[in-house]
Amino acid sequence: MNRLSLNQISTKSWSLPEAVAGCAEAGVEWIGLWRDKVAEVGVAETVRLLKRYGVKVSSLCRGGFLTGVTPEGEPVDGVADTRRAIDEAAALGTDVLVLVVGGIADNDLAASRQRVADAVGELAPYARERGVRLGLEPLHPMQCVDRSVLSTLAQALDLAEEHPAEVVGVVVDEFHVWWDPEVEASIARAGERILGFHVCDPLVPFTDPLLARALPGEGPVDHRGLRSRVEAAGYRGPIEVEVFNAELWSLPGEVALRKVIESYRRHVAEP
Amino acid sequence: MNRLSLNQISTKSWSLPEAVAGCAEAGVEWIGLWRDKVAEVGVAETVRLLKRYGVKVSSLCRGGFLTGVTPEGEPVDGVADTRRAIDEAAALGTDVLVLVVGGIADNDLAASRQRVADAVGELAPYARERGVRLGLEPLHPMQCVDRSVLSTLAQALDLAEEHPAEVVGVVVDEFHVWWDPEVEASIARAGERILGFHVCDPLVPFTDPLLARALPGEGPVDHRGLRSRVEAAGYRGPIEVEVFNAELWSLPGEVALRKVIESYRRHVAEP
Repeated sequence: MNRLSLNQISTKSWSLPEAVAGCAEAGVEWIGLWRDKVAEVGVAETVRLLKRYGVKVSSLCRGGFLTGVTPEGEPVDGVADTRRAIDEAAALGTDVLVLVVGGIADNDLAASRQRVADAVGELAPYARERGVRLGLEPLHPMQCVDRSVLSTLAQALDLAEEHPAEVVGVVVDEFHVWWDPEVEASIARAGERILGFHVCDPLVPFTDPLLARALPGEGPVDHRGLRSRVEAAGYRGPIEVEVFNAELWSLPGEVALRKVIESYRRHVAEP
Repeated sequence: MNRLSLNQISTKSWSLPEAVAGCAEAGVEWIGLWRDKVAEVGVAETVRLLKRYGVKVSSLCRGGFLTGVTPEGEPVDGVADTRRAIDEAAALGTDVLVLVVGGIADNDLAASRQRVADAVGELAPYARERGVRLGLEPLHPMQCVDRSVLSTLAQALDLAEEHPAEVVGVVVDEFHVWWDPEVEASIARAGERILGFHVCDPLVPFTDPLLARALPGEGPVDHRGLRSRVEAAGYRGPIEVEVFNAELWSLPGEVALRKVIESYRRHVAEP
């Protein structure tokens, strides 16, 4: 249980102070922070709360959108924004910044992928100087158009391996990679580049590509199997339960957190 | 234009006789048939109509569900059903039967994939005896749970290559594979095993995994690029325009077919 991390999105109704206090109350040692929630109280106050409650940060979510366009199609300077996210991660005391690299710009997939590679090359030195590692998170192929032209773990590794392992790695999120026939080989290949492991189950049918997710145990993902692969590859860090689910979000934070803990215990942690 | 094939699903409102006559009327030489539409008039009458109108069959859709469960979760004997589909394909004068292999049974992805491999092994001799080739169609990973545990072209090829190329091949459907960072390498690898090429664009967001598709030209797929890859691999057969789209389906068949022809001409066929 000391590896469980509450990804803050799973208790979306909670503010940052509530989530940090809630983790401490429930004995959860780690939290995965979201920048919008941090921004509501500020980085300094977040650091104070984390220290007061003795909760550690497993990752900061997120930098990215390096193709220059938001999911809604608006222009964005993802590189500049990711520099700010790197600074925030360093200030918050986590060395893992999750990157959602962004969807297709100008209807050109190949050029968009190249743009991401170029941007990571530009950001890597900045991150290294601040002791922050960039965690490339491949997203499910259904999000290729609007959120991430990185679609598989192998593809993320191809990009990460252009940089030192202490600067650029990958985040393994079950929702995004469980279906991949190559996922086990890719996890083994990732080795020390695994910067995070997120657990979640898909819901079917995908009536909504963001929200069709469930707590571990309600779907087809072999959580223990993937966990054992990730561990065999060398990852021993925190495991984030990260669930986008409207029903879960409608619950009071402490109820949602109890469900997070219970599903983690039963479906992820137990042998 | 002589390679254009109307996949019958694109003119869903049309019965089989209407679709065959409509193709002839519009100068479309090929049609991709669906078994439910064929069943409404019977195989013999379909053969008669095809001959009368001089329309050729590019493929029959579909056999499969070899994991033993329908998309709705009902039990099904997919092997027996696929044997019937093989017979129908032979009778209809097409040597390509599209297989949608089926989703996850018993919440066990690895076992489901093995079940598919076993079933294809069982069906291959039956197909060969009847001169029908089995076209394994990998479906988009968002359909892994309920429709197809074959999720990438590379994975479909791994399975196909256990059998002679004249018996088991693959169907390249843009909607399902366009996002795949390995798609170009896989198409080159597929070579003579390419039994069909289906064109379509994805719609975003995926509010419905079946219907979030559009005619070529409305989305991010590089149709000419993929067509040139498929041709470089050696495929010179018909190209099916296969679009699941509620708006298209609401149109009179002849209007839908005109849109199919126009989008094919502008976005797929022209250099």
